[in-house]
Amino acid sequence: MDNAGYCNETYESLHNPASDDELVDIAGATLDFSNTEDVPPLDPEYGSGYGNTGYSNGMTGNGKLMDLLDEPVPGVGTYEDFNTIDWVREKSKDRDRHREITSKSEQSTWALLHSISDAFSGWLLMLLIGLMSGALAGCIDISAHWLTDLKEGVCLSGFWFNHEHCCWGSNQTTFQERDKCPQWQSWAELLGGSSEGAAAYIVNYLMFMLCALLFSFLAVILVRAFAPYACGSGIPEIKTILSGFIIRGYLGKWTLIIKTITLVLAVSSGLSLGKEGPLVHVACCCANILCHLFTKYRQNEAKRREVLSAAAAVGVSVAFGAPIGGVLFSLEEVSYYFPLKTLWRSFFAALVAAFTLRSINPFGNSRLVLFYVEFHTPWHMVELVPFILLGIFGGLWGALFIRANIAWCRRRKTTRLGHYPVLEVLVVTGITGVCVNTLPDRPAGPGVYTALWQLALALFFKMLVTVVTFGMKVPSGLFIPSMAVGAIAGRLLGVAMEQMALNHHDWLIVKGWCSSGADCITPGLYAMVGAAACLGGVTRMTISLVVIMFELTGGLEYIVPLMAAIMTSKWVADALGREGIYEAHIRLNGYPFLETKEEYEHKTLAQDVMRPRPSDPLLVVLTQEGMSVGEIEGVMADTDYSGFPVVVSQESQRLVGFVLRRDLVISLDNARKRQEGVVSASLVFFLEHVPPQPFSGPPVVKLRGILDLSPFTVTDHTPMAIALDIFRKLGLRQCLVTHNGRLLGIITKKDILKHMAQMSNRDPDSILFN
Amino acid sequence: MDNAGYCNETYESLHNPASDDELVDIAGATLDFSNTEDVPPLDPEYGSGYGNTGYSNGMTGNGKLMDLLDEPVPGVGTYEDFNTIDWVREKSKDRDRHREITSKSEQSTWALLHSISDAFSGWLLMLLIGLMSGALAGCIDISAHWLTDLKEGVCLSGFWFNHEHCCWGSNQTTFQERDKCPQWQSWAELLGGSSEGAAAYIVNYLMFMLCALLFSFLAVILVRAFAPYACGSGIPEIKTILSGFIIRGYLGKWTLIIKTITLVLAVSSGLSLGKEGPLVHVACCCANILCHLFTKYRQNEAKRREVLSAAAAVGVSVAFGAPIGGVLFSLEEVSYYFPLKTLWRSFFAALVAAFTLRSINPFGNSRLVLFYVEFHTPWHMVELVPFILLGIFGGLWGALFIRANIAWCRRRKTTRLGHYPVLEVLVVTGITGVCVNTLPDRPAGPGVYTALWQLALALFFKMLVTVVTFGMKVPSGLFIPSMAVGAIAGRLLGVAMEQMALNHHDWLIVKGWCSSGADCITPGLYAMVGAAACLGGVTRMTISLVVIMFELTGGLEYIVPLMAAIMTSKWVADALGREGIYEAHIRLNGYPFLETKEEYEHKTLAQDVMRPRPSDPLLVVLTQEGMSVGEIEGVMADTDYSGFPVVVSQESQRLVGFVLRRDLVISLDNARKRQEGVVSASLVFFLEHVPPQPFSGPPVVKLRGILDLSPFTVTDHTPMAIALDIFRKLGLRQCLVTHNGRLLGIITKKDILKHMAQMSNRDPDSILFN
Repeated sequence: MDNAGYCNETYESLHNPASDDELVDIAGATLDFSNTEDVPPLDPEYGSGYGNTGYSNGMTGNGKLMDLLDEPVPGVGTYEDFNTIDWVREKSKDRDRHREITSKSEQSTWALLHSISDAFSGWLLMLLIGLMSGALAGCIDISAHWLTDLKEGVCLSGFWFNHEHCCWGSNQTTFQERDKCPQWQSWAELLGGSSEGAAAYIVNYLMFMLCALLFSFLAVILVRAFAPYACGSGIPEIKTILSGFIIRGYLGKWTLIIKTITLVLAVSSGLSLGKEGPLVHVACCCANILCHLFTKYRQNEAKRREVLSAAAAVGVSVAFGAPIGGVLFSLEEVSYYFPLKTLWRSFFAALVAAFTLRSINPFGNSRLVLFYVEFHTPWHMVELVPFILLGIFGGLWGALFIRANIAWCRRRKTTRLGHYPVLEVLVVTGITGVCVNTLPDRPAGPGVYTALWQLALALFFKMLVTVVTFGMKVPSGLFIPSMAVGAIAGRLLGVAMEQMALNHHDWLIVKGWCSSGADCITPGLYAMVGAAACLGGVTRMTISLVVIMFELTGGLEYIVPLMAAIMTSKWVADALGREGIYEAHIRLNGYPFLETKEEYEHKTLAQDVMRPRPSDPLLVVLTQEGMSVGEIEGVMADTDYSGFPVVVSQESQRLVGFVLRRDLVISLDNARKRQEGVVSASLVFFLEHVPPQPFSGPPVVKLRGILDLSPFTVTDHTPMAIALDIFRKLGLRQCLVTHNGRLLGIITKKDILKHMAQMSNRDPDSILFN
Repeated sequence: MDNAGYCNETYESLHNPASDDELVDIAGATLDFSNTEDVPPLDPEYGSGYGNTGYSNGMTGNGKLMDLLDEPVPGVGTYEDFNTIDWVREKSKDRDRHREITSKSEQSTWALLHSISDAFSGWLLMLLIGLMSGALAGCIDISAHWLTDLKEGVCLSGFWFNHEHCCWGSNQTTFQERDKCPQWQSWAELLGGSSEGAAAYIVNYLMFMLCALLFSFLAVILVRAFAPYACGSGIPEIKTILSGFIIRGYLGKWTLIIKTITLVLAVSSGLSLGKEGPLVHVACCCANILCHLFTKYRQNEAKRREVLSAAAAVGVSVAFGAPIGGVLFSLEEVSYYFPLKTLWRSFFAALVAAFTLRSINPFGNSRLVLFYVEFHTPWHMVELVPFILLGIFGGLWGALFIRANIAWCRRRKTTRLGHYPVLEVLVVTGITGVCVNTLPDRPAGPGVYTALWQLALALFFKMLVTVVTFGMKVPSGLFIPSMAVGAIAGRLLGVAMEQMALNHHDWLIVKGWCSSGADCITPGLYAMVGAAACLGGVTRMTISLVVIMFELTGGLEYIVPLMAAIMTSKWVADALGREGIYEAHIRLNGYPFLETKEEYEHKTLAQDVMRPRPSDPLLVVLTQEGMSVGEIEGVMADTDYSGFPVVVSQESQRLVGFVLRRDLVISLDNARKRQEGVVSASLVFFLEHVPPQPFSGPPVVKLRGILDLSPFTVTDHTPMAIALDIFRKLGLRQCLVTHNGRLLGIITKKDILKHMAQMSNRDPDSILFN
């Protein structure tokens, strides 16, 4: 257990975070239970807010004076932290809610208005998420720009201006020397009065390093102190949360605030990291917080996840200015349950966010995109060969990066390295800073070969620092670093191709399209293709990556080169390892995530996976009548299962329903406290009609209400491939196994994940959560 | 039964089509059974090709001399026409196939190559589909262009040139008079020698009408004679097929040939119809035919449907030159099961098709798109009001069109109107032709008010003919007519707005953005927004429509007006009737289609839907041992269920498995013919280990092989909303219902559809197929 958790944090420290994050948590229903871990306070006022439990008995009365047990018990139907939700139950709850509102809407105008506002609340929520995320992304862009410039100097007209804004007001600058104006002073000018010479260089260099180290120090300290969840890109966790996992506080307000601030600091410190992944996390935090404004989304884990899927699209939309690409990214890469309604709403939110960002205009050119490609030179069929080579490079880099990064992260977890996260960040910042200043940004020098060598060196270095950077305890996305690696490699190849065409323009292959010997190869196009290929290799995105690049370049001209490179990159990377970087990090952290993309290849049956195993004692079941409160509490004390099947009798093993441990604990506790005379000897009935009891005995406890009367069952002969499909498509938490109508065992999501780990020769105990 | 079938054709005539379509059918596995309806010929050579049945017993031996019943029985595991497939079974079959190839691939180089070629066959297939569909679409465009011009005249340089090509060679034409050259002769010039005067006008007019009538006559005659399935748009049927229905010959080679030819004829005849829907059908036919080249896709209904989903994307891609929009159209509107792998492949195929079409260059301007918007004038926030008005108009038109069209189609089915399809087509062609020539295409005349009146008249007329055209016995898409209606309405509003701005430029609302009083309103933009709104109202497309329009216009500028109009249109249309035109036609034809977009609103439980109903006799079951061949045949003769549950014993009603009627019939027949001594008294065993039998009795029949050992079950308390979700997500055909472990009843897809029809006060007997 002690090796789990993200960014090197252990499970225990995550489970009891020091901050008060739990107030704004992913499980909205338990909003105020920060002090009572399992059992909520039994204040009757809480009762009405929690909705009903069970699948179909939705509309019991609300009257407080009726039979106590007809009233919903607070806490029943909620989830514990680090547990998996039951999608079927959540969706049923929402259907009941919706049905109630619809049926009431015919009774009064007020109810009708309520029904209409309920129907449009989803759109309103999307609008708010788009506005908030767009605004935040704009602030992040502007602040990061300013802080980055602060490493080099200060604006005398006002320290809050960045270099570009500082020089806007100046009349003395020509177009060529736009970034030189008297108002902007480098640190050397400010401190030493001189802008020339070795001393000035050293002063500037030292200040640069100092600022970089300061920013990264602040970032890591803030993350550690206030929001441990703010580190990393967040996408692996968001994928897991969207698949139905609960991580309280992961999308809370503290995470949002700290992640926003530290993202700016981390980006400005010059570390080899990007802001795309963290922007997705930020957008999801916004969405989660805004969900609390609407009952519909606050109280339903499934509905909330629909909103979070849309927020993921918003994050990419603001990161790249690519709304359609963002929606497809969410669909392809992040989301688990993505109905068509969500697709359309995501697109709306992504558009709102993109336009909000544009009206903030952080890049000062009223363009939505970070990189805008200006060239429109055509490409030739022959060039597909180098493009495919770039694809192969991208695939190799992707596979290599994933292995190296995972190995490094595992090392960080298991060795003493993990005990010094602040030092680690500072060292990496220092190394990155030293190298950036040593290597020139642009190839300039006497010959093109020097430039090529410098590019190659930059490539090697960038690859190295990217591997150690992703996974440190600061917010870090890997889109930009991956693309940078690819862009350098692409430019290398492009320049080499250009040289070849220049020097050997009599070669047959060149002659075909490049008779003049020049200007027929655009190294920039190679850089773009290389960037896409490397990002594809690392993340295994396909259509969303093509569409993002299409939206960035704004034309269909380069779709074929991009597709060729991305396709090759994916094939090469897949051949070397099936997982993308996010799935690899999910596995590293032991999250319960059932991958939807991969086919289950093995021939095992449900009976090979279910518990109890043949050597184990029999399955622990409850009977629908005849067990006392004490007996049931004894069963719960003896086992740690999170749920129990209820059968007609121990002999027949005919299944009646399924009851969750949490619901049982809460209900029995509630009965003992609120129902007079309930003692350990009281009989518990899961029957609908309780047979008449003798007057002498203690009162009975009726628990039909918490019984799930439609548990999912499969037969023992069901192939695991089908069982897995059922789990994935319906979002189950557990499934019961029967043989010829008799209950035989149970399969949980964790059992499946353990089994899959075993089948691929991995450690089954690497799955840490339920 | 006699009112079913599409385009007014009855079920019986569809079920036994006159053509030999069945050779190339949607159920590839029954490729050559055209003469034996249910039971395939028992030639042992057939055995090996059919794969295995059951879910997990994939790898029984192939040896012909082993126990006869271990060998797969030909025909077992295939489907009858007009039946629903079992997705779970098909996917299992494919997994078994894949596992076998993978496991063999380690044994020899040849097997490894086979495994690799198998993995890439999907991509190759996509490439072929893209090439073939793109080429066909190019031919259709060119031919339709030529035939349309042929209505007006002939090229003297060669009758195969269309008007534009004819005049390309001419030197005498100026840019203005591009379409007037001596080589191109109108019919009046050719026949009467004169191009002026009333006589020439009449001759031209008569020839125009004659050609139009001839084309439409040929179209309807060809459809009737050779391929009844070629009529209509095809999208409702393709939706149904993709959801798992079998319609043999619907995607066959005859349908392809006839649909291609008659589409050209129908478009050229001037009828109010488009070619987008039919192009989707054509692309799906190509895909289905090309599937026969690859075993993987030929023998698996589920895999084939993945390919067909991609083909739907290809169809829209070539129709609009919008590959991304096509993929989203397939995802949003057509597809049922659309895994991410298919998304990526669809995109590839759509791109290949778009580029093939572009290299054919049917529009002579090397653009992919049919309509290219040149204007880039900005729009003002205030204009959102008229855009939303257009959205409301689009929604109203959509709802009205669907109702009127469905009412008209129902009338065609139930009255004598349906008996004269040829006459109907000719009359509609005639009326359309008369009106097109009476109403000028462009508003030109003394005043703008005349133009507005003419536009309004054109709008009214277009609406009328579109309603009666869609559903006639010719290929007819409704994208273009719907968009035309919207474009006319939009232009009307645009011109009105322009007039308002011109005449009242002192109004406050106009002043804000339109101070000069002119050129600040682009009626063309209104036309575009109106077109999108009307198409949205009719089809209820959302994101795919926005993306198609985005790809057509090539800029993000107009996305907000488009989204506002499309969103409003959808809301308005949905408020007046939930179904889009395709769903309405599916319901009209009684196809078994479970809509995935709508939520199930009712509170019913599985026990309210299952058969037998409380008043009916008990469920008919088979026992796993003890029944004779004669008894089972008797049960089958007495009932018409398509499958039977197998239980341990009649008393316990503990479920063992499920066996399909078709498999049972084939297997018993096979046993009687090929296994010596099997008589009616022979005992049938579904057990794994048959107990030793006395020597005296007849040999036993072992049918464990055809038993589905993992039938899906739900409890009687399962809400129908959940059961429906299971059916939709897993693609079930039937599901068994249990109560406390005892088998109680069965729910089929048809039962659910009937129940849903009943709940919404429709005739449950409108569901015609299983």
